[in-house]
Amino acid sequence: MRVVLIAVQSLDGFITRHDRPGAGFASAADQAHFRAALPEFDCAVMGRVTFETAHASGPALANPVRRRVVLTRTPGRHAASAVPGALEFTSAGPAEIIAKLRSDGCRACALLGGGQVHRLFLAAGLVDEVWLTVEPRLFGGGTPLLAGPADVALELRSHALLDANTLLLKYAVRR
Amino acid sequence: MRVVLIAVQSLDGFITRHDRPGAGFASAADQAHFRAALPEFDCAVMGRVTFETAHASGPALANPVRRRVVLTRTPGRHAASAVPGALEFTSAGPAEIIAKLRSDGCRACALLGGGQVHRLFLAAGLVDEVWLTVEPRLFGGGTPLLAGPADVALELRSHALLDANTLLLKYAVRR
Repeated sequence: MRVVLIAVQSLDGFITRHDRPGAGFASAADQAHFRAALPEFDCAVMGRVTFETAHASGPALANPVRRRVVLTRTPGRHAASAVPGALEFTSAGPAEIIAKLRSDGCRACALLGGGQVHRLFLAAGLVDEVWLTVEPRLFGGGTPLLAGPADVALELRSHALLDANTLLLKYAVRR
Repeated sequence: MRVVLIAVQSLDGFITRHDRPGAGFASAADQAHFRAALPEFDCAVMGRVTFETAHASGPALANPVRRRVVLTRTPGRHAASAVPGALEFTSAGPAEIIAKLRSDGCRACALLGGGQVHRLFLAAGLVDEVWLTVEPRLFGGGTPLLAGPADVALELRSHALLDANTLLLKYAVRR
């Protein structure tokens, strides 16, 4: 199973503008790219805050991904919302989550944030690719792409314009 | 006079790798780009730490820029190193520094860091362009491109490969 981190950031690496939750700064071109990319994936993993922000802000994550796994320290609190095989809440570690999805036959997993989840899965060596939309903005503060120190080497696979000012960069993670 | 911020960063916006000073992580391709770009400029502005790190790490900033201005809170301490019209130390504000260079006939100013200087000059609306080399690395920590919150809108002017994995992105600052 392939694991792809998908995110949109400012040029200087922030996935939120200052303390405003969500990616409201993302261009229409990025949103279209995101909607078009998701059907390639049969599962998605995200943190609880990302999940709740997405739900609060509209249907962006009411998405065509068949199976969603939400990381939370308190999965019991979300038991009423859970739908087995479609929307799961778990406090399991990254390796266990990925192993379970793989053994269930999933082929492509989208890692959808936030910074804690990115860092956790990258540090565990579980991410194969990074698809990063770079918006033409400098924020100087906000939620960073990774929630803490790491040292990950990448290989650029492609770079393309989503619109006149927005770039989509695709990297493979070096092992 | 045109003011161009020139920097090299990790994909996630750090101009140092964790707490290691300097841009030792920069690719050979970025170093070649930097050396090739500097002769376009007749002056350069940088912070004291950037100046001292560059000097300690070799001749990178013993560069073909005719006139260098180093920002420091204590210019008096550097009086012995100063060379009028070639290497100046100042505690003046960004607007005053730029006005002086412009009135002295300078045409192109390279802004060479670090994060405090980037933020100071961007916040003052004194930067015309951002030339950013993006290395295929994720650090999750280090000196950020901007030392604190800002909200700067950019226009992408060009994107090009410096080598197979390193991108050079050139932006104009929107006014």
